[in-house]
Amino acid sequence: MEQPQNIKGMRDHLPPAMLLRQHIINTLVGIFERHGFEPITTPIVEYAETLEGKLGDEEKLIYRFEDHGGRRVALRYDQTVPLARVVAQYSGQLTLPWRRYSVGPSYRGERPARGRYREFWQADADLVGSASPVADAEIIAMLTEALAALGFPGFTTLLNHRQVIGGIARVSGLEEAAAGSVYRAIDKLDKIGPDGVHDELQKTGVTEDAATGILALVQLEGSSADVLHELRQRLQGDERAMAALANLEAIIGHLDSMGVSPEQYQVAPRLARGLSYYTGTVFEAITSHWPAGSLLGGGRYDELIGMFGKQSVPTVGLAFGIDRLHDVMEELGIGPRPQTTAQVYVTVFSDAQMDASLRLAHELRAAGIHTITTLDGGTNLGKQFKEADKRGLRFALVVGPDEVERNEVAIRNMQNGAQRTVPRSAAAAVLREMLGM
Amino acid sequence: MEQPQNIKGMRDHLPPAMLLRQHIINTLVGIFERHGFEPITTPIVEYAETLEGKLGDEEKLIYRFEDHGGRRVALRYDQTVPLARVVAQYSGQLTLPWRRYSVGPSYRGERPARGRYREFWQADADLVGSASPVADAEIIAMLTEALAALGFPGFTTLLNHRQVIGGIARVSGLEEAAAGSVYRAIDKLDKIGPDGVHDELQKTGVTEDAATGILALVQLEGSSADVLHELRQRLQGDERAMAALANLEAIIGHLDSMGVSPEQYQVAPRLARGLSYYTGTVFEAITSHWPAGSLLGGGRYDELIGMFGKQSVPTVGLAFGIDRLHDVMEELGIGPRPQTTAQVYVTVFSDAQMDASLRLAHELRAAGIHTITTLDGGTNLGKQFKEADKRGLRFALVVGPDEVERNEVAIRNMQNGAQRTVPRSAAAAVLREMLGM
Repeated sequence: MEQPQNIKGMRDHLPPAMLLRQHIINTLVGIFERHGFEPITTPIVEYAETLEGKLGDEEKLIYRFEDHGGRRVALRYDQTVPLARVVAQYSGQLTLPWRRYSVGPSYRGERPARGRYREFWQADADLVGSASPVADAEIIAMLTEALAALGFPGFTTLLNHRQVIGGIARVSGLEEAAAGSVYRAIDKLDKIGPDGVHDELQKTGVTEDAATGILALVQLEGSSADVLHELRQRLQGDERAMAALANLEAIIGHLDSMGVSPEQYQVAPRLARGLSYYTGTVFEAITSHWPAGSLLGGGRYDELIGMFGKQSVPTVGLAFGIDRLHDVMEELGIGPRPQTTAQVYVTVFSDAQMDASLRLAHELRAAGIHTITTLDGGTNLGKQFKEADKRGLRFALVVGPDEVERNEVAIRNMQNGAQRTVPRSAAAAVLREMLGM
Repeated sequence: MEQPQNIKGMRDHLPPAMLLRQHIINTLVGIFERHGFEPITTPIVEYAETLEGKLGDEEKLIYRFEDHGGRRVALRYDQTVPLARVVAQYSGQLTLPWRRYSVGPSYRGERPARGRYREFWQADADLVGSASPVADAEIIAMLTEALAALGFPGFTTLLNHRQVIGGIARVSGLEEAAAGSVYRAIDKLDKIGPDGVHDELQKTGVTEDAATGILALVQLEGSSADVLHELRQRLQGDERAMAALANLEAIIGHLDSMGVSPEQYQVAPRLARGLSYYTGTVFEAITSHWPAGSLLGGGRYDELIGMFGKQSVPTVGLAFGIDRLHDVMEELGIGPRPQTTAQVYVTVFSDAQMDASLRLAHELRAAGIHTITTLDGGTNLGKQFKEADKRGLRFALVVGPDEVERNEVAIRNMQNGAQRTVPRSAAAAVLREMLGM
């Protein structure tokens, strides 16, 4: 057999890259749980029927097949449709509003490209069953806390509302039905520029004047208060837009109490977000250090979660793309860069000293120090030091016959070669201090 | 559309069950990392060819399908074959011996039954690239630490070696080729009893005398030293069995230095383990509190990991079945039973007091306390207390106009209804103490 490979677009995550991924996931989960979000895990495989009819043009990307019983099944392509199924299936067991998070892979048969994978990991957090602006504010607060905790410098959350864009389309004289193509055109503003969007809008049948009017409005910039004020003037008379602006104002009013400062967000009428299921707020985090696109986004979707049940379930949520966060953090050099999980390497002086070393390693582990040992007693000490260094360990320990005799341990700093000897009984405490534990 | 369901045998893990699963996984990962094992994650989907030809009769259980490019792909059925692929594919990047762990789901198209799932989660730890008995001892030590950390009462690790069983077969006059059927027959000892195994052995062509001899040997019990001594007497002259006994003795010799006490393991010549790929030690943990089967197992398999490369890579490892551990812990009442991730519920006295509550919640979260709030200001306090109680929260907080006026917070113990008032500035510290943080 030829040497096997992973499938393109489905990646192996090996250390040390995997350690950064784990750091990202653990940080996000920590924030989610601090807000009382509860974990769920649903299967990777769902009935195809559950997943079909919700992705539009992308439907063809679903991995579908027949299982052993001839059932049509499919790999999930996100964690939102399974959430909708769960809310319908277990409605009797769930107390709404329900804060839930999920971390796991989803699958789309994309053509693999830089930053686009066939297996991709997401960390979703959704607040299910509340239409309150406090719910939107809480999701935005979590987003802010998460990016701060991950160490992103100078990020901003762009904030908009679907009915602001709807109002912009309506005051520009467009029919309700045109709203979808307006979202999609505006969504491309950062990519194709104002002229491009102008063309795009006209292609979808918008008059030149209307296109110019839309572009002037969506390009409004300034403090959130100024932008809201300006929008209120220009969208006057459109009731739904007025309600949307009031909603945005209410959300912003709570952000301060939740620890989000005004420099951390911006009302941005240009923010559309492509997904058709959003019904209220939409938001996206960007950073000037990564101009290539948004870090993550989310919004309110009051109709999607209820689709399998009898009534709509207002929901606001967001999804962190783990792959995107990882790629950006690696490129920007953000976050810790451990090479391995171990902290300390216990050498083995000789076969006869093996158990002295194993015993020391056991004591260190019991003190919470991540410790590995040599497995073969016959290796010379110099080679073991080299190995410790190669593995990225900061300290190598020696318990040779002299050390055993004197009840001591020698600690070698692998970065500078300095060596000190400490009483055996103090070894764990000294190392904990040297490791900053 | 009819209300959708999960696929049978592929389970939804909702809170609070999911919280116990997370506790199990986090505990295992903690132990793995303390021993310097490094995490990897490989895709759920592999080329079918990579996975085929290794499962024998079970091969038909593999989920196979064609992807969008017409490639034959499959869902992985364990985490060992993907590890073998990784070791071959990235051999240049890996430093052997390599300690690696993986946590994730695998798939087999089984008929679902109690304890048998089509999607099942495993936490695997393998020490790749060492034939040293220290490696076997380390895996057994991790197993012991993990079950102790999870809180399993009185478990024992049964320990055997493939060449002990081989020797038993050989001294009973069997051909080498018969060894496989002997393993499989002995493997059923706990299920079908000695008479059953006797029949089974005779069915595979073993003479009555040989079957009786085999049964006498595999049923040896007693202290590890006694059993080893007895086996050494009875298997004298069989070189491979003698080497196996010496290997077991060396491993046991290291267990003590690694903190494993003699009551925690037992040399058990009856332990066969069905999997055909084991080449050396095999082990399995059992507890008298759960007579239905083993908690988990593992062993040494020196040929499997190297199968995609040019040379064999000696490896010893184990796999914790998360579903099995979860089911047993739930049934035996082991481990924590949190109902939710939140610890504290901040009520909202009225719409006007909303931001006072949000601000308090933000302060508590910043102090590491998992906090949720009401999302709607209009709910009366009694109803909010009921909700806090229903959600399993231990404390509900009130910041009404009086409390704001006096700069205080009222803390209500939801278990006994007791209420106390503390200065606002002390709230987080008092709660941390009440929560035992």
